[in-house]
Amino acid sequence: MNERGFIKQGSIAVREGKIAYVGKGTAAADIRVEAKMEAEGKVAMPGLINCHTHVPMTLLRGVAEDQTLDTWLKKTIWPLEAKLKPEDVYVGALLGCLEMIKSGTTCFADMYFHEDMVARAVEKSGLRGALAEGIIEAGNKVLGERMLSESVNFVRDFNEYADGKVTALFGPHAVYSCSPELLTKVRVKASELKVGVHIHLAESKKMVEQIEREHGSSEVEILDEIDFLKPDVVAAHCIRLSREDMQTLSKRHVNVAYNPVANMKLGSGAPRIKSLADYGVNICLGTDGPASNNTLDMFETMKFAALLQKFTYSDPKILPAQEALKMATINGAKALGLDKKVGSLEVGKKADIVLVDFSKPHLTPLHDVYASIVYSAHGSDVDTVIVDGRILMENRQVKTLDEQAVMEKAEETALNLLSR
Amino acid sequence: MNERGFIKQGSIAVREGKIAYVGKGTAAADIRVEAKMEAEGKVAMPGLINCHTHVPMTLLRGVAEDQTLDTWLKKTIWPLEAKLKPEDVYVGALLGCLEMIKSGTTCFADMYFHEDMVARAVEKSGLRGALAEGIIEAGNKVLGERMLSESVNFVRDFNEYADGKVTALFGPHAVYSCSPELLTKVRVKASELKVGVHIHLAESKKMVEQIEREHGSSEVEILDEIDFLKPDVVAAHCIRLSREDMQTLSKRHVNVAYNPVANMKLGSGAPRIKSLADYGVNICLGTDGPASNNTLDMFETMKFAALLQKFTYSDPKILPAQEALKMATINGAKALGLDKKVGSLEVGKKADIVLVDFSKPHLTPLHDVYASIVYSAHGSDVDTVIVDGRILMENRQVKTLDEQAVMEKAEETALNLLSR
Repeated sequence: MNERGFIKQGSIAVREGKIAYVGKGTAAADIRVEAKMEAEGKVAMPGLINCHTHVPMTLLRGVAEDQTLDTWLKKTIWPLEAKLKPEDVYVGALLGCLEMIKSGTTCFADMYFHEDMVARAVEKSGLRGALAEGIIEAGNKVLGERMLSESVNFVRDFNEYADGKVTALFGPHAVYSCSPELLTKVRVKASELKVGVHIHLAESKKMVEQIEREHGSSEVEILDEIDFLKPDVVAAHCIRLSREDMQTLSKRHVNVAYNPVANMKLGSGAPRIKSLADYGVNICLGTDGPASNNTLDMFETMKFAALLQKFTYSDPKILPAQEALKMATINGAKALGLDKKVGSLEVGKKADIVLVDFSKPHLTPLHDVYASIVYSAHGSDVDTVIVDGRILMENRQVKTLDEQAVMEKAEETALNLLSR
Repeated sequence: MNERGFIKQGSIAVREGKIAYVGKGTAAADIRVEAKMEAEGKVAMPGLINCHTHVPMTLLRGVAEDQTLDTWLKKTIWPLEAKLKPEDVYVGALLGCLEMIKSGTTCFADMYFHEDMVARAVEKSGLRGALAEGIIEAGNKVLGERMLSESVNFVRDFNEYADGKVTALFGPHAVYSCSPELLTKVRVKASELKVGVHIHLAESKKMVEQIEREHGSSEVEILDEIDFLKPDVVAAHCIRLSREDMQTLSKRHVNVAYNPVANMKLGSGAPRIKSLADYGVNICLGTDGPASNNTLDMFETMKFAALLQKFTYSDPKILPAQEALKMATINGAKALGLDKKVGSLEVGKKADIVLVDFSKPHLTPLHDVYASIVYSAHGSDVDTVIVDGRILMENRQVKTLDEQAVMEKAEETALNLLSR
């Protein structure tokens, strides 16, 4: 994911959780080492970074399908979420972490309730997480204030948690669910505590139109008026933007998390990624919550990401494979303020490495490694996952979690939740 | 895939290649049997039916990516195809068959050159195939006649080949590449020999416009004028149709093969599946060739199929999961004239059965089996594949092909082809 590109028959050395060598030939293998891992027939790549999800929603995967966003939220999701206990969130997050490890994601940006439980699941799994406690005011100022103060506590308690593998962000839900006053306070706190902000932006047509009717300005304009937009903001979706909105996002160095699968599944439309990229906006990728996707597989998301843009612009040259892979790795790291640490295989960076097994019929023959990864590979082709130099999965066996126990507990918890 | 729907904790018995029992409980297990297969935690479903592909193109997977259809065909694909030898086609088809078995496809409709070699690969693999030798006239009447007579030979030699697992079709490439005169002859021959016809229809904007300029009629109108359109026709793509064209396809009971992944990847646009279905047209699914997809994974195609329609109509209710699964099974069987034989798990039908292993994080919890299959499962979740009562794969081990040998030979052949 840097200028050097793809290295054939290379080797990598890891020392104290960081990449100590990466290059052609067996140079790394000549270093005196404690442990060696052969990777013939495999491709080593940076761990994938999922920049927008709500992992505990694994529990709700499939509970209400093929419905409008409105019906889905009001009739099923919100009533169920109201019954969610912190332990449920832990169980759902653990299932999500397991699924992410098994599909090659090493870092994810999450926004949900009881996010402290997600942090604990991240710690247990060994993954890296940029976590935000969700803030929804929904017209209730007292509620908004309480959620903000809980978020401040979350940031204080969990930023740099789990040996620095957890970073905390603020997670104001959206412009339509948080007032400009509350968003201003969030911005001030985020800058003061030096953490980022994760927000939904310009997703649903209905909400965007409602905001414009009420305020006479777009969501982006409202945020810019209160000085909210800065390089530490990850804005998910960004489907309904004017040219002026795009220019503003570019000028403020806001990061856009593109969620092609959920956008298509909910019939929300597609962001104009080429235009945003032409304005110089950093684009990263997200799966969105597993209840509206219904997986956390970033390989699948890369393919959807590239294909939806080719479709939108009626041009197969748009968003080539290598660009999609950048969005899922180095661009994601940049969006989360982690690009000095992760997002590419470079000396000095954390060893967040994934090995993909290419000895598969659908990955044969190998003419173009980028096209194979983006258009042919699936999460299930990931053989080995390393985060911070620690092996989380090898030969598809997860080492940090008891797979069977995590799945059984999740099944039981989901059924219990539905029966409450 | 019939009115009975999903059976929890059921059992299936197979006798002489056919389903002898399917129902609740262990009734089938009480039948005196030669061999039993436990399937706890697995879902048995009809094998998937891929209604439009060019399998030998596995060899060209990834050779020329992110290009316009025109450049892709003229600069890379056609020059390489001109160098293809029959043995190459066999090697590519074998790799495709291996990939299909590993991802739960039990039957496919193919159109390519040297299709006799595809028939031999189908026989070797144990799959079911509806195969067509491609006919491209391209302004050369002598060539057209020769290809037609080769096709007649192919149909005579290979219809009902491999214990009836191969059925032969005619494969006139498209209206823009075959004259009405030749298409008329194909139609007469197909009716005489009682086999179906597989054709590309209304795919690329450029070709559709060119035809309309030259003939003053649409592709559908041209075909209807020569009485080409009948219930034995599988028309791939059908993106650019007028309301009248749709009505004609409905009136003539033509089957439409929808190829969402290739349509998106090539930026061709999307067929209006809801409108076609509202007119009563039978819709089935295809992957298209692996060089423009880049897999043969019908699970992936089902997800793309549903999501692209939700996106196209801006409505998440469109094309629900169960409907996508019908398209990939019983509708596909109907399109190929095989619905009396396969496409659903019913007593008397051929035992073309796939077991999907649901003990996976991304398939947990199980709230909705149709949503899980279409939105969460991948080809790699298929554990066992049975065709005609014969086990082609069990515990992901393919029994009819040497996986390693097939992949190595394909890699070698592809490199050799590129160096010619």
